[in-house]
Amino acid sequence: MKRNVALEDAQNMVLTMACPVKESNIPLFDAVGRVLSQEIKAPINLPPFDRSPLDGYAVRAQDTAKASEAEPVVLEVIEEVAAGHTARRKVTTKTAIKVMTGTPIPAGADAVIKYEDVTRAANICKIFYPLKSGGNIVRAGEDVKAGEVVATRGTQVSPALVGLIAALGFAEVTVYNKVKVAVISTGDELVDSSQPLRPGKIYNSNLPSLVAACTKLGAQITALGNVPDELDSIADIISLGLADADIVLTTGGVSVGDYDVVPDALARLGVNVIYRGVDMKPGSPVVAAEYNNKFIICLSGNPAAALITFELIAVPLIKKKMGLTSYLPARLEAVLDGDFAKPSPQRRFLRGRFHVTEGTNCVALTGEQSNGVLKSLVNCNAYIDVPAGSGRMHAGQDVSVLIVGDVFGQ
Amino acid sequence: MKRNVALEDAQNMVLTMACPVKESNIPLFDAVGRVLSQEIKAPINLPPFDRSPLDGYAVRAQDTAKASEAEPVVLEVIEEVAAGHTARRKVTTKTAIKVMTGTPIPAGADAVIKYEDVTRAANICKIFYPLKSGGNIVRAGEDVKAGEVVATRGTQVSPALVGLIAALGFAEVTVYNKVKVAVISTGDELVDSSQPLRPGKIYNSNLPSLVAACTKLGAQITALGNVPDELDSIADIISLGLADADIVLTTGGVSVGDYDVVPDALARLGVNVIYRGVDMKPGSPVVAAEYNNKFIICLSGNPAAALITFELIAVPLIKKKMGLTSYLPARLEAVLDGDFAKPSPQRRFLRGRFHVTEGTNCVALTGEQSNGVLKSLVNCNAYIDVPAGSGRMHAGQDVSVLIVGDVFGQ
Repeated sequence: MKRNVALEDAQNMVLTMACPVKESNIPLFDAVGRVLSQEIKAPINLPPFDRSPLDGYAVRAQDTAKASEAEPVVLEVIEEVAAGHTARRKVTTKTAIKVMTGTPIPAGADAVIKYEDVTRAANICKIFYPLKSGGNIVRAGEDVKAGEVVATRGTQVSPALVGLIAALGFAEVTVYNKVKVAVISTGDELVDSSQPLRPGKIYNSNLPSLVAACTKLGAQITALGNVPDELDSIADIISLGLADADIVLTTGGVSVGDYDVVPDALARLGVNVIYRGVDMKPGSPVVAAEYNNKFIICLSGNPAAALITFELIAVPLIKKKMGLTSYLPARLEAVLDGDFAKPSPQRRFLRGRFHVTEGTNCVALTGEQSNGVLKSLVNCNAYIDVPAGSGRMHAGQDVSVLIVGDVFGQ
Repeated sequence: MKRNVALEDAQNMVLTMACPVKESNIPLFDAVGRVLSQEIKAPINLPPFDRSPLDGYAVRAQDTAKASEAEPVVLEVIEEVAAGHTARRKVTTKTAIKVMTGTPIPAGADAVIKYEDVTRAANICKIFYPLKSGGNIVRAGEDVKAGEVVATRGTQVSPALVGLIAALGFAEVTVYNKVKVAVISTGDELVDSSQPLRPGKIYNSNLPSLVAACTKLGAQITALGNVPDELDSIADIISLGLADADIVLTTGGVSVGDYDVVPDALARLGVNVIYRGVDMKPGSPVVAAEYNNKFIICLSGNPAAALITFELIAVPLIKKKMGLTSYLPARLEAVLDGDFAKPSPQRRFLRGRFHVTEGTNCVALTGEQSNGVLKSLVNCNAYIDVPAGSGRMHAGQDVSVLIVGDVFGQ
């Protein structure tokens, strides 16, 4: 077990040990947001056949070679085909077949002329300019060729990808199962918000906020509730979580105080403690452990510290278990929008809001930065990574930020 | 009814008529991603009482006035209080009460000293430096004051906001209902991906991709399926959709061809057609209509055109109906990463991928830009807004982009 590790080491030690969960076939209609555990190889061409991209007339280009405004070529319209149907007849010399957008090109034709460019009368159409062979024909496979890989394993399924996979004829896809996360809060001081607040108690915010954060990621959550600061209770409930979940998250009880019994509970369970303590503020007391390829991440009980270490330590783990191939937050340079008066002897993550203003990437502090304060996390979409030993920070200085939330309202 | 309107006019005409759906009380545990229809005003202070931010000893500062390394002050420890509990006794002259992180400050005390800074022996503790009155005490209401508004109506609930609302003691919140969207595709040529592909047919991608896109937004979807290009069938199914949904989406049948019967179906239903045709490529044939404060948005049948006009025209409407106060995509300037050889006589939206490279906002084209091609939408997170009358575009030129998808992997 290591102590007070660097954040990046904490992330890597756990990520190296983690592998994605099992996979299942699911209907394509349920696949948006899920992660492919198979590559998608096109079984057919897209489009599946040579098609017309517009409403018009399929003809033989050579028949139109001498067409002009003054002396239009006159073709006999021998058939009209609707989209979704195929021509029964063949285009032969001096004939045309009317086609719609998406109609397969009739046999014998090698060009299509737009509906608007033709004069039609009874079963005759007049063409006023010569066509090139191949004109207005979308070739089979022009979008996707049969055999082409259109999505790789580890891709999160977007609405457009659902469309593309559907267009290729898949009714089902193979995806990684939802990651099962059990969430536990610990602390004698915590009261469920449906209960009255007795003296010395506070409402439990960690359990609902972490359940919400896991839900947003697409995990399958079991909220195991709150347990008091007692070794037996905590060991029992972690054990219960491990029975079914891939990851057990706890909050509270990880500092060095008399009632911080979570590390003792881990010791009693005989799990493999990977590290204890991460060199960062807030949230430094985080503990990570592994047992039978399942993970236990024990976060600080301070509400803001819990959410920040959840984001930096638990989210990458959950994403890797989900089967995603990119799981660490994006890092960007930005200009600090305001001052921050306190020096940072320890590496510190400040809550900020990243925005692009007049082409410049900026980040503003979102308010009070204490461990317990949730308010400044509500509009936070980025953490400012302040190196250990930094002095006070000034408006206009360059900072490094990790993007952890929505930037452009998508 | 207006024809061939500008995109912004198309958006505004519909948005002006739309208002949010009804609201319901739901458990806070289900609220992430939902939109508040109430403001959240704090009923209590956060923290609810003066609390200790650390494990230590609560004392009277004046008792420590003469403390020094050489001559420490000795106090009697009269009680030890755990987090979640309150002191039974009062701090009086020359006494101290041991407190934990989160413990209410005992009566009589006006400062807390860190556990690590004290020498403890039996019921005695030694203090080596003078404390300031108020030191290490977090005051009631320091995070949130009772009566303060912590979230306004129209806010989408994030995990941190769930935590903050929970900390204030709410077990339920009032949110806008999920917007009900009915999705219909039309076209004789479309086959469900569970069926074999007969000649002239293509697999239906519009229905699954639009269902996925609405699901991702958090709507409640009814997939009404595909109907052939027949006036009666289309009128009937739109009518069925209007019976229950807030918004009916259709694809196909909106061009000017012989089988484009959706506008006729709208006329038969007697709905109020707001506009027909938007001056943009792809997707120009879009039609918007209103009936009893419900909306019908009829998109092109070309798969890429359908998704792009869904994003630019239907998404803002769905977002406004959801109760969100910001519903149009963010617009940014970016440097074009490659060339685009075709001139754009009409205003055109090109599919691109926005990224920040070495501090510069860039956008790369994602591939083939034809109306039907879905492949270039799969990695697309931005549309390049190309003004009408533009010539060919070159790498390095500045372009205006609308952000329509995830940029930083969040």
